[in-house]
Amino acid sequence: MTITVYELGGLEDFRYCPFCWRTLMAVKHKGIESFDRVPVFYRDRSPIDFTGQGKVPVLVDGDRWVNDSWDIADYLEDTYADRPALFGGDVGRGGAQFISAWTNQLRRPGLTEIILWDAFEHLDPADRDWWREDREKRFGRLEDYKDGREEKAVAWRQRLDPLRATLAKQPFLGGELPGYADYIMFGEFQWARCISQVQLIEADDPIYEWRETILDLFDGFARAAPTALG
Amino acid sequence: MTITVYELGGLEDFRYCPFCWRTLMAVKHKGIESFDRVPVFYRDRSPIDFTGQGKVPVLVDGDRWVNDSWDIADYLEDTYADRPALFGGDVGRGGAQFISAWTNQLRRPGLTEIILWDAFEHLDPADRDWWREDREKRFGRLEDYKDGREEKAVAWRQRLDPLRATLAKQPFLGGELPGYADYIMFGEFQWARCISQVQLIEADDPIYEWRETILDLFDGFARAAPTALG
Repeated sequence: MTITVYELGGLEDFRYCPFCWRTLMAVKHKGIESFDRVPVFYRDRSPIDFTGQGKVPVLVDGDRWVNDSWDIADYLEDTYADRPALFGGDVGRGGAQFISAWTNQLRRPGLTEIILWDAFEHLDPADRDWWREDREKRFGRLEDYKDGREEKAVAWRQRLDPLRATLAKQPFLGGELPGYADYIMFGEFQWARCISQVQLIEADDPIYEWRETILDLFDGFARAAPTALG
Repeated sequence: MTITVYELGGLEDFRYCPFCWRTLMAVKHKGIESFDRVPVFYRDRSPIDFTGQGKVPVLVDGDRWVNDSWDIADYLEDTYADRPALFGGDVGRGGAQFISAWTNQLRRPGLTEIILWDAFEHLDPADRDWWREDREKRFGRLEDYKDGREEKAVAWRQRLDPLRATLAKQPFLGGELPGYADYIMFGEFQWARCISQVQLIEADDPIYEWRETILDLFDGFARAAPTALG
């Protein structure tokens, strides 16, 4: 197979889009060791013109392409059904959909405001003017998000109680093994980790150990990504 | 098989314990049409003395017994593996554990305060003095919960956004079919429905239709429960 993931490009080698990380981890989970990664930028989406839509991630598998991280996970699960399970059946897929909805509502308001300024700083320079104009329509002045990040992180952390309680009972959202639900939530942490120095989780939190474990998966694939910590 | 569910007893025929409803629905889901239900009261837990612990639900299946709603669901899934799936495998079970944790944190603060007074009114009269003393240690004067229920319900309803978003994409938390995750959350609604007249969900909410569908399952088993609406 020849697989390519089109993902959001940022400054230099920073690749931080949370939905793209869902896809990257899902591809790895299916035992696909080697695949191409192509950055797509806000101001130049021409690499995915062939899809007729402007959003990443896009997965190309041979002569097929799929967009939308959920649909990509579905495609991978169905196409590589003999590989490790992402959903493990309809009920698992249903539960992952809920975890996706829960994760999404942690973002706005939530993690987005905590790392909005960091996101700006890690954009490709050619994207900055467009992005500032686009985001300031929704969020107001970007500079206003430079302060108070740690305090916001404390409040956000408390909202993770259902994740914390689950990880006190089992090692992964997928149960004994990681599954797509884990990558959904991990994508948020990886987004922050790639661009921000704010401490989202404290070292004695069960979520911390879970995140470390996922960073170690697939020979440390996610851990090897360039981060703001250098 | 001879199955008995020991559940919390209330005033007259009211049976409203949310964890017991998880169990009742799980038993029905496994196609067990007929089983015994035995009420256990706060001040008289002698029917479950044989378990050496004081909590309901307890399920007795022939010469075996299991307590704790989660462990009962596990037991039913494993023992009646050829019947309709509650979890559909380890990943589904893992996701249900998260949905359980999420549901639990909706309760306090949350639904408990909305229906605390109603719960008091639907106790078996012999339980009232004990329960008032026990609950007032944690919640303060019960009478303070008579007012403001509708306003609290508006705030609680908003916290259900992840459920709402999921049900916009699929008919059940379990995907195309109801699963144990649905009964976990349904238990909360049934708890309220049995004892309270407060309107938790508005009729145009996708959650409303989902709840109606579950009330209709198994020939309207849950709908037939005595409610505060009469």
